[in-house]
Amino acid sequence: MEIEQPPVNRERIIPTGERRGLVLVHTGDGKGKSTAAFGLALRAHGRGKPVLIYQFMKVPSARFGEHRIFEKLGVPIIGLGDGFSWKSKDLEHSAELAREGWARAEATIRSGDHFLVVLDEIMYPLRYGWVPLDGVLACLRERPAHVHVVLTGRGAPAELIELADTVTEMTLVKHHYKAGVPAQRGIED
Amino acid sequence: MEIEQPPVNRERIIPTGERRGLVLVHTGDGKGKSTAAFGLALRAHGRGKPVLIYQFMKVPSARFGEHRIFEKLGVPIIGLGDGFSWKSKDLEHSAELAREGWARAEATIRSGDHFLVVLDEIMYPLRYGWVPLDGVLACLRERPAHVHVVLTGRGAPAELIELADTVTEMTLVKHHYKAGVPAQRGIED
Repeated sequence: MEIEQPPVNRERIIPTGERRGLVLVHTGDGKGKSTAAFGLALRAHGRGKPVLIYQFMKVPSARFGEHRIFEKLGVPIIGLGDGFSWKSKDLEHSAELAREGWARAEATIRSGDHFLVVLDEIMYPLRYGWVPLDGVLACLRERPAHVHVVLTGRGAPAELIELADTVTEMTLVKHHYKAGVPAQRGIED
Repeated sequence: MEIEQPPVNRERIIPTGERRGLVLVHTGDGKGKSTAAFGLALRAHGRGKPVLIYQFMKVPSARFGEHRIFEKLGVPIIGLGDGFSWKSKDLEHSAELAREGWARAEATIRSGDHFLVVLDEIMYPLRYGWVPLDGVLACLRERPAHVHVVLTGRGAPAELIELADTVTEMTLVKHHYKAGVPAQRGIED
């Protein structure tokens, strides 16, 4: 995947020294997009900041390693999906859940109650058109100034990259799946 | 930074279905190399696995957000450095600490007592020649088969990329520093 470097927009240059909430995007085909978001959540929580994680592609009952720890720490990590995948049979149901999930996430961001809100794997419903890009961009632009938002997933739209403060592309250089090594519990989930 | 894709080495192809420890590398100029390693540590800890984190460029007294949480969780996160930076005045001392730190990390990896060992920012001492690349490669090759090792930092050597199972390059697409927004507590530390 190619991400075009957006042109420098001088109107968006912020006076040096201002502290404010950031929009951070983790995209690309490589590993680490979600785990880096979890690391940020951990860090912010460690600073005593209120954090909330929404996961657009996980079911509410997901109990991966990260869910167990964030629950223990008291950091809400909320699955909004139905485990959609290429095997999914009811796309309309997936779309409906994504729309409802976005409504919840938008309300959370706009409330300003959290220092950091993670929108994990939101690029999938954005790409499928289940969540309206314009609505997401408007919410990010209009959010309370102190709120940091991290958005993860492959194929971040150009408009989102333009709006974001920090964009990292995780690029796959090599992957153990290709060498025939399967997913490893405790590493992959 | 360019990372050359290593040639496929058929001798390294593992029979499908084998579960074993992986060598994972997070490199590149972008954000998320360390935070993704912390996310992996969190996940493994959430699965009840013993995890240990060494940080080659942090002082033992570092108390960033991640240190506070990993301490609370009982995951050792050990600073091995003296806060070396381009401002550092005593490079010989930094080199000595890095060598001592690597000796500790090597003993931990070889002991097989941990499911996952993180070597955070080890690429710096590797690049400076403070930690011998051959020694690191030998340790990774000879380690107990169940031990996962994550190595982070810019400029991963080609030999390490060749040996690794999974390599992700974090590429900077844009960064808020460039727009004059300073480091944000709870996000950057």
